[in-house]
Amino acid sequence: MPYARISLLKGKPPAYLRAISDGLQRALVATFDVPEADCFQIFDQLEPEEFVFDRSYLCGPRSDAYVLIALTAGKPRSQQTKKDFYRRLVELLEKAPGLRREDVMVVIHMTEPEDWSFGNGLATLVQDA
Amino acid sequence: MPYARISLLKGKPPAYLRAISDGLQRALVATFDVPEADCFQIFDQLEPEEFVFDRSYLCGPRSDAYVLIALTAGKPRSQQTKKDFYRRLVELLEKAPGLRREDVMVVIHMTEPEDWSFGNGLATLVQDA
Amino acid sequence: MPYARISLLKGKPPAYLRAISDGLQRALVATFDVPEADCFQIFDQLEPEEFVFDRSYLCGPRSDAYVLIALTAGKPRSQQTKKDFYRRLVELLEKAPGLRREDVMVVIHMTEPEDWSFGNGLATLVQDA
Repeated sequence: MPYARISLLKGKPPAYLRAISDGLQRALVATFDVPEADCFQIFDQLEPEEFVFDRSYLCGPRSDAYVLIALTAGKPRSQQTKKDFYRRLVELLEKAPGLRREDVMVVIHMTEPEDWSFGNGLATLVQDA
Repeated sequence: MPYARISLLKGKPPAYLRAISDGLQRALVATFDVPEADCFQIFDQLEPEEFVFDRSYLCGPRSDAYVLIALTAGKPRSQQTKKDFYRRLVELLEKAPGLRREDVMVVIHMTEPEDWSFGNGLATLVQDA
Repeated sequence: MPYARISLLKGKPPAYLRAISDGLQRALVATFDVPEADCFQIFDQLEPEEFVFDRSYLCGPRSDAYVLIALTAGKPRSQQTKKDFYRRLVELLEKAPGLRREDVMVVIHMTEPEDWSFGNGLATLVQDA
């Protein structure tokens, strides 16, 4: 049910984006109660003047590899589930594409199940049979 | 009051984007209690490696014409209103630009009226006279 | 704690974006209880066909310099705080880069403290010591 916007500096090859995509999806499946096929992601590849981030606020040092992941979820998750997701995510992204843990920032947006239409003009998650 | 982010693969002519813009706005006016002039939209035109979506999760098959519409609204709507909007939207986008119903996905984000400033530094929707 | 997405028409030099970045951050620090170093911003530089906005709805006239700022915050703010922020923001952006007050639109998205990981796989704002 989630979709993600993933923002990073321009200049990485497609395989690098694919590794982020895979790591994020695997972390969601492992910890966030997300089916494997439930994968929707948008990448923003930004010029330096388009991407402003502090190098040390509440974590650091952040490098040019810094990634900001904005995740929109469709049903409530416990605080523990969110903690598990954050931890698993940095573990996986450290393996591939090799992101430092300081460079992975996440923000979760909440919505309601009725706020999702996966297609066909239906409120997919609350539709009557 | 809403604004929309509309994400799709790069390569469509401006007239195609315009048809999506018009169809979305007409669906909002018809079903979502949105004035005709209340139209704010951002299009993301993405490279294939920037746009990851499952071809069949909860609806499909999705084609390369797949569009993800993230709508941010400023006041509550009933579940029925949302259902009416989803249905009307795919009807209109099927007519122009000719989108298949399986290719239209929507996510609604909620905010409060006080969260909107339409300009002039005012909290437009809750401002005292 | 906030991060911002700032959308505007393509064609401005980096110094212009920097002035918007600075003005926004200074307004947040002055009115929104945001530490100076807490600065995370993404700029969308859009083609005309990618950026649809009404020139007069609830404020105007809007010009080609129109800017839409979507701010995601991580803890509640009072209505008065939001009003103070909107007003301070247009004052600062009017000085630099010289934006007309009619051209500054803001939408605030709310999240919870547990929805933020600033890095290292931690739920930074709710983490046990």
